[in-house]
Amino acid sequence: MNNNEYVKDITNIEENFAQWYTDIVLKAELADYTDTKGCIAIKPYGYAIWENIQKYTDNKFKETGIENVYFPVLIPENLLQKEKDHVEGFAPEVAWVTEAGEEKLDEKLCIRPTSETIISTMYSKWLNSWRDLPFLYNQWCNVLRWEKETRPFLRSREFLWQEGHTIHETEKEAIDRTLQMLDIYADVTENLLAIPVIKGIKTESEKFAGAESTYTIESMMYDGRALQSGTSHYFGQNFSKPFNIKFQNRDGKEEYAYQTSWGLSTRLIGAIIMAHGDNRGLKLPPKVAPIQVVIVPIAQHKEGVLEKTYELKRELSKNYRVKIDDRDKYSPGYKFNYWEMKGVPIRIEIGPRDIENKECILVRRDSGEKVTVKLDELDRTIEEVLNNIHTSMFQACKNRIKEKTTIAYNLDEFKENMNKNQGFIKAMWCGKEECENKIKELTGAKSRCIPFEEENLSDKCVCCGEHAEKMVIWGRQY
Amino acid sequence: MNNNEYVKDITNIEENFAQWYTDIVLKAELADYTDTKGCIAIKPYGYAIWENIQKYTDNKFKETGIENVYFPVLIPENLLQKEKDHVEGFAPEVAWVTEAGEEKLDEKLCIRPTSETIISTMYSKWLNSWRDLPFLYNQWCNVLRWEKETRPFLRSREFLWQEGHTIHETEKEAIDRTLQMLDIYADVTENLLAIPVIKGIKTESEKFAGAESTYTIESMMYDGRALQSGTSHYFGQNFSKPFNIKFQNRDGKEEYAYQTSWGLSTRLIGAIIMAHGDNRGLKLPPKVAPIQVVIVPIAQHKEGVLEKTYELKRELSKNYRVKIDDRDKYSPGYKFNYWEMKGVPIRIEIGPRDIENKECILVRRDSGEKVTVKLDELDRTIEEVLNNIHTSMFQACKNRIKEKTTIAYNLDEFKENMNKNQGFIKAMWCGKEECENKIKELTGAKSRCIPFEEENLSDKCVCCGEHAEKMVIWGRQY
Repeated sequence: MNNNEYVKDITNIEENFAQWYTDIVLKAELADYTDTKGCIAIKPYGYAIWENIQKYTDNKFKETGIENVYFPVLIPENLLQKEKDHVEGFAPEVAWVTEAGEEKLDEKLCIRPTSETIISTMYSKWLNSWRDLPFLYNQWCNVLRWEKETRPFLRSREFLWQEGHTIHETEKEAIDRTLQMLDIYADVTENLLAIPVIKGIKTESEKFAGAESTYTIESMMYDGRALQSGTSHYFGQNFSKPFNIKFQNRDGKEEYAYQTSWGLSTRLIGAIIMAHGDNRGLKLPPKVAPIQVVIVPIAQHKEGVLEKTYELKRELSKNYRVKIDDRDKYSPGYKFNYWEMKGVPIRIEIGPRDIENKECILVRRDSGEKVTVKLDELDRTIEEVLNNIHTSMFQACKNRIKEKTTIAYNLDEFKENMNKNQGFIKAMWCGKEECENKIKELTGAKSRCIPFEEENLSDKCVCCGEHAEKMVIWGRQY
Repeated sequence: MNNNEYVKDITNIEENFAQWYTDIVLKAELADYTDTKGCIAIKPYGYAIWENIQKYTDNKFKETGIENVYFPVLIPENLLQKEKDHVEGFAPEVAWVTEAGEEKLDEKLCIRPTSETIISTMYSKWLNSWRDLPFLYNQWCNVLRWEKETRPFLRSREFLWQEGHTIHETEKEAIDRTLQMLDIYADVTENLLAIPVIKGIKTESEKFAGAESTYTIESMMYDGRALQSGTSHYFGQNFSKPFNIKFQNRDGKEEYAYQTSWGLSTRLIGAIIMAHGDNRGLKLPPKVAPIQVVIVPIAQHKEGVLEKTYELKRELSKNYRVKIDDRDKYSPGYKFNYWEMKGVPIRIEIGPRDIENKECILVRRDSGEKVTVKLDELDRTIEEVLNNIHTSMFQACKNRIKEKTTIAYNLDEFKENMNKNQGFIKAMWCGKEECENKIKELTGAKSRCIPFEEENLSDKCVCCGEHAEKMVIWGRQY
């Protein structure tokens, strides 16, 4: 399958998807393993993708009134313990600071796995009256969860994310905010990353530790597995009671605030790799690609070629992120493969003959399609092609979801579908956790969500056959 | 001195500068103390200043080819110990993770106090040939140093910063980069924050643990104390040798890389407060102010006033960061004081009469000056006034440095000057650490730097009277 020299070191995507993934992370220079076990170093090319995600998302947040803040990375043990479900969920996977400044600490401090506890403590201090509400704060930061098995971007002990934390006067306002942020996540994933998502609500057993309800966007990777790409939680008063976040309401009475939190992380870089990549390497959605157009000069030693290339770059850089590969130790063929592997959406080839004809060759990374373009139409053509690439990549993922989503009415069908065509399965569910557990045990699939777009397939649970009202989307997951 | 109701809770700046500082941090809602001792929560108004600093600085970095990356927050103990001076300098003030995932760790991990060690380890892995060089990487992140005495922004156990780490083929290139980044820091401090700086080189005893030489920008605060506002270090091969960062040079021989690092931090927010503030509160330099113009409607219940105010805001928001204070529970007078305390550079007052006359009143935070401005000239006037405010604020700091910088030829003069007019002292120094120590003991002043603009005051050390060639700037410090 790997028909060129450069990518011969990349494992075939059909043969070993997990190894293919790791190969891409390393060869495309997105990240590397470090001496700190389970933690990666994000290299410039990977970090530039994250910066593009941050910029887009942060703007969307701010348009809705969100402000950025920063809370301490260390959380005293007693704060973590205040909300029962939360501590049960997170305590097993936190890292503890027990010594500092050459002394043993009186109280251990954990490195934040998420910041509900420390933020709630401060909200309690800052909130007095309904007039102060809402608090609409977010932080971009690092968090740490001591995972046993780690994979770059997908499950790293340390990862980068944003966590938004809001408190509100009413339940309705808080729920509206929870859903509004979910919509932003869907926007980011679909419109920036070209990855279609399914929006829905998590079942009880899959929701965030301490939440009243957790909303999710679920996407499907190349191999049919699901990736939870962002979650938004409604807490009700679950934290505001133990943390004493209360205010004088409009009637002059004390009331506990209604709270939300929501996050997305560098996991999305893993999603980009696994949703779009192929045997030639990474395939970057144009809007987050650190380099949107790479220009490869042909016969660059010939008079006027490099000059023309630089001129072209100056021109195109006004509207696009452009790079020239003028390395003299590599052949054009090597460079073609190299930049395909790095996932750059558009390649421009330009040599003496092209310059003479006032044209160049434009090659799409997604389809491999080559066209000759007049130089005076290049700027406009690039815009059009980048848009087309985005749309095609989105559509390809959409088609995959269609092909790999099946319906099951009983467990045998469920198992057969999952083994024959790993993907999403739509099936009715009675609402009992034991049915979820049984399905997981037998098929490896977990409930992804109860989608907002409900369908009524039957009135019987796929597992126990008892009365069922909810349709759940199931899938194996990352 | 505090002649208005709002600021009556702010301590007089002349009476107790330290308490005034804390009052400003809290009342202007820049930050708050947290349950994590020695760590602050940065509130939206404070964080927005940091975001403006980040944006400006990050652009300047990128213009010089710097790329952003991210390395792990946890560093294994054995890495910290590889460079002798570095570990001596930092080990006493780090926090250690000793337990994680409910188990005791085999090897302790420290939370980065700075990242030379982990980054050098990766550079060693990534570097092969001179063709790979330079590496020009930077990260925006949190770091932790277990300080005994802490103050918000100035000396917080956790703080936010950027740390740039570069490696180069030659000594010259590395030194040039060190100085280039120092120039960017001076640019940020002077052109963005309106705080003049003195550039220079640190003495041996004041340089960064592990550096060959440390360059600094020093600024002077309201009370005459110095604040080190950014540092840039040249490492030579001090890290590349123990960390084995080597490459094949142009002659095909192995050579160790030449290295730099440089950082600036949320300390700069402390510098803004202390360089510019006064008895009315914070005074923000226009270019970093989260709100540059606040509009206060007068008689806002009267027909047309709020409408006109919103229209004005829409118009001005195209070019400036504008806020309307339309809270109905506060009087205009209260609002004036409130926004002065928050340091907003320009206030616009507009009431029914003004609207009729197609004008408004514009008030400068820095000088208190009030002018009437025609509405159709407002946009242009604001631009001009913001520029003037920047220049005046810069000049005021410049004047302070002039007034509070004296020369001393012997220790008696040194002590007298420092006690009568706390500020910078220029004095010759023989180069011996014992003289630095003695001066510190007797006067509380440390060497700030040997400034790039050298002066030759005499040929005798201010302390021991022996031969001296260097002039040092001394000062008490934050």
